[in-house]
Amino acid sequence: LKSALANLAAKGRLRVAGLMSGTSADGVDVAICDVRPGRADLLAFATVPYPRRVREAVFRLFDPAAGRIDDLCHLNFALGEVFADALLKTAARHGIALRTIDLVGSHGQTVCHLPQGRREGRRTVRSTLQIGEPSVIAERTGLVVVADFRPRDVAAGGQGAPLVPHADHFLFRHPRRTRAVQNIGGIANVTFLPAGGGLKDVRAFDTGPGNMVMDRLAWRASAGRLRFDRDGRMAAAGRADPRLLAALLAHPYFRRRPPKSTGREVFGAAYADRLYDRGRRAGLSPRDILATASALTAESIARAYRRFLPRMPGEVILCGGGARNAGLVGRLGRLLAPAEVKVMDEFGIPAKAKEAVSFAILAWATVRGRPANVPSATGARRPVVLGKVVAGR
Amino acid sequence: LKSALANLAAKGRLRVAGLMSGTSADGVDVAICDVRPGRADLLAFATVPYPRRVREAVFRLFDPAAGRIDDLCHLNFALGEVFADALLKTAARHGIALRTIDLVGSHGQTVCHLPQGRREGRRTVRSTLQIGEPSVIAERTGLVVVADFRPRDVAAGGQGAPLVPHADHFLFRHPRRTRAVQNIGGIANVTFLPAGGGLKDVRAFDTGPGNMVMDRLAWRASAGRLRFDRDGRMAAAGRADPRLLAALLAHPYFRRRPPKSTGREVFGAAYADRLYDRGRRAGLSPRDILATASALTAESIARAYRRFLPRMPGEVILCGGGARNAGLVGRLGRLLAPAEVKVMDEFGIPAKAKEAVSFAILAWATVRGRPANVPSATGARRPVVLGKVVAGR
Repeated sequence: LKSALANLAAKGRLRVAGLMSGTSADGVDVAICDVRPGRADLLAFATVPYPRRVREAVFRLFDPAAGRIDDLCHLNFALGEVFADALLKTAARHGIALRTIDLVGSHGQTVCHLPQGRREGRRTVRSTLQIGEPSVIAERTGLVVVADFRPRDVAAGGQGAPLVPHADHFLFRHPRRTRAVQNIGGIANVTFLPAGGGLKDVRAFDTGPGNMVMDRLAWRASAGRLRFDRDGRMAAAGRADPRLLAALLAHPYFRRRPPKSTGREVFGAAYADRLYDRGRRAGLSPRDILATASALTAESIARAYRRFLPRMPGEVILCGGGARNAGLVGRLGRLLAPAEVKVMDEFGIPAKAKEAVSFAILAWATVRGRPANVPSATGARRPVVLGKVVAGR
Repeated sequence: LKSALANLAAKGRLRVAGLMSGTSADGVDVAICDVRPGRADLLAFATVPYPRRVREAVFRLFDPAAGRIDDLCHLNFALGEVFADALLKTAARHGIALRTIDLVGSHGQTVCHLPQGRREGRRTVRSTLQIGEPSVIAERTGLVVVADFRPRDVAAGGQGAPLVPHADHFLFRHPRRTRAVQNIGGIANVTFLPAGGGLKDVRAFDTGPGNMVMDRLAWRASAGRLRFDRDGRMAAAGRADPRLLAALLAHPYFRRRPPKSTGREVFGAAYADRLYDRGRRAGLSPRDILATASALTAESIARAYRRFLPRMPGEVILCGGGARNAGLVGRLGRLLAPAEVKVMDEFGIPAKAKEAVSFAILAWATVRGRPANVPSATGARRPVVLGKVVAGR
């Protein structure tokens, strides 16, 4: 193992596969890329859907009371097989010989996350649980695997999230330009990269609502026909209501100082439902309500920058599903001017591949012995080397 | 990480702490030893009991249907703290400075083990689950931790057990003497070490019943007063019944060829209860029944050697609780003559510390990149490097 790691660390360029499955548990994102200092060239990307039975089994585990320990034990190994299959299939389809891959970074599937912690004697113990057994991935592929990145940050007093700021810094830091990487996923979050700054200068936090709210509104507005507002078309056909928008921007989350994070409990379906009903009572059309929610996402991002970033970025790099919402992107451009708002794809990393690429980069950091959490973002007491290393063949 | 591992691998002697908790979930066995090729010198050993609440929480997880996923997520980290505390306390009590320890090998606490596997699409997926988060142990101690040894053997098609044969070979192989290491724990198992043999020449399997049967009989015979027959005194006061013994030795397990393993389901409390009732009906006194069970353990060991070992060992090294049962040891000596029967303590490793020492040795093997499973014992397709490596400070 040590000589395998020494060989890896000695190479200037590593071919690394990043594997990731998100909370939606749709399947495995596989990104194979050539990583060298400050750069990742994407060679292949695919989302390999979970087999239906596996997805159902994952969702049963999401219910802490209904999930069974023996099912978890089994599913950890079964997901290891699924992750390995996804990598093997993606490599084969793109004609990438497995022996040219040096390393795998696997996030796994989160099944439980308790960052607030529970009392245990005189301590508060925080915890998090990702599954998708890396020993299985290593055995099937023969490759060195780094996995389980969140627990060490949690052990160091952090929330175990967000972990992407390291990759944002790795990929997008610039000696003379101050940049922000703005992800608009279910929740929206920013990584601030001051010109010439090191990892310790990075700031990252959740700005607030994102696609979870807009998706739910589209679903309500379409009486269940639409799962989301494709390219923001419905919102683009409406007009944001200034009074409702001002009321929504009074939410206390927007005033809280970072480090902060939010989620489904605050800006999820229940929030969207209340927003929808309130808009309807005020006489707004469904598309006006959607336009207002889109404006809320843009405004909450812009205000967060002005309130909490040390200075305004000159460039904003968008990723996540919201980067395809033209109305949202346009409004952000106006609000953040004179900053240039760009979509991540322009930088050679498709927005959808970004998270899987991030875990390839985190694995790269681990084998080099580099701490990769950002304590100001996760709340950890100190920078730590993340992950667990499993031997290849 | 790679330079930490390279430093470790370059050192001739490593100070390694082995951490272990067994199925009885009483507490953490901590063994701190200096490991060099073929030798482990024990510096400190202690069993640090689990806090009562923690032990109860572990037992709740043992029931797969009743255990909750969020409790498992929490307990994985809580046990990480308990394992770290146990190591820190043991080191402090013995005046061993933490910075002199190079490495930790932690087995964790098994909460589920499904080596038979479950169908999953076209595959059978075997699985096993140990908890006691190594990231927490690494963060609290600052030491490199190797943990989670069983999953890789399972991923390679093995049962994930037994893993002690590697340590038996490491510690007790001899260039000119053929030895057997005989553990008499809840179940009895043997590791056969032919003179001058390599790891691939090792044979290991469960010989059959051990203390689980004798403990239950002592409990029955004492109407619940005794948890076990201390030093085998009750059995020593009785006489084994030849007819009952012959009937018991007809059990089909004894004829099955290795690799084989058995457990609580076959030679546990239910088996002991049937044996007790049968003996009483045949007019035997409780102590005669205990003497018969003791004889059964000895006979099943001796017969297994003659049937299944390539040749008889010249030395038998006893460990486990049964090594303190004088009647059992005496009978084994007669049955195995001319082999010399010795207790492991004579070799400088107290029998009770053996398992924790074994995991220190397994961690030593992992950082050197050495496979440490014995495929003929676990059923794995090939030798594999076990464990997951977590960085220290």
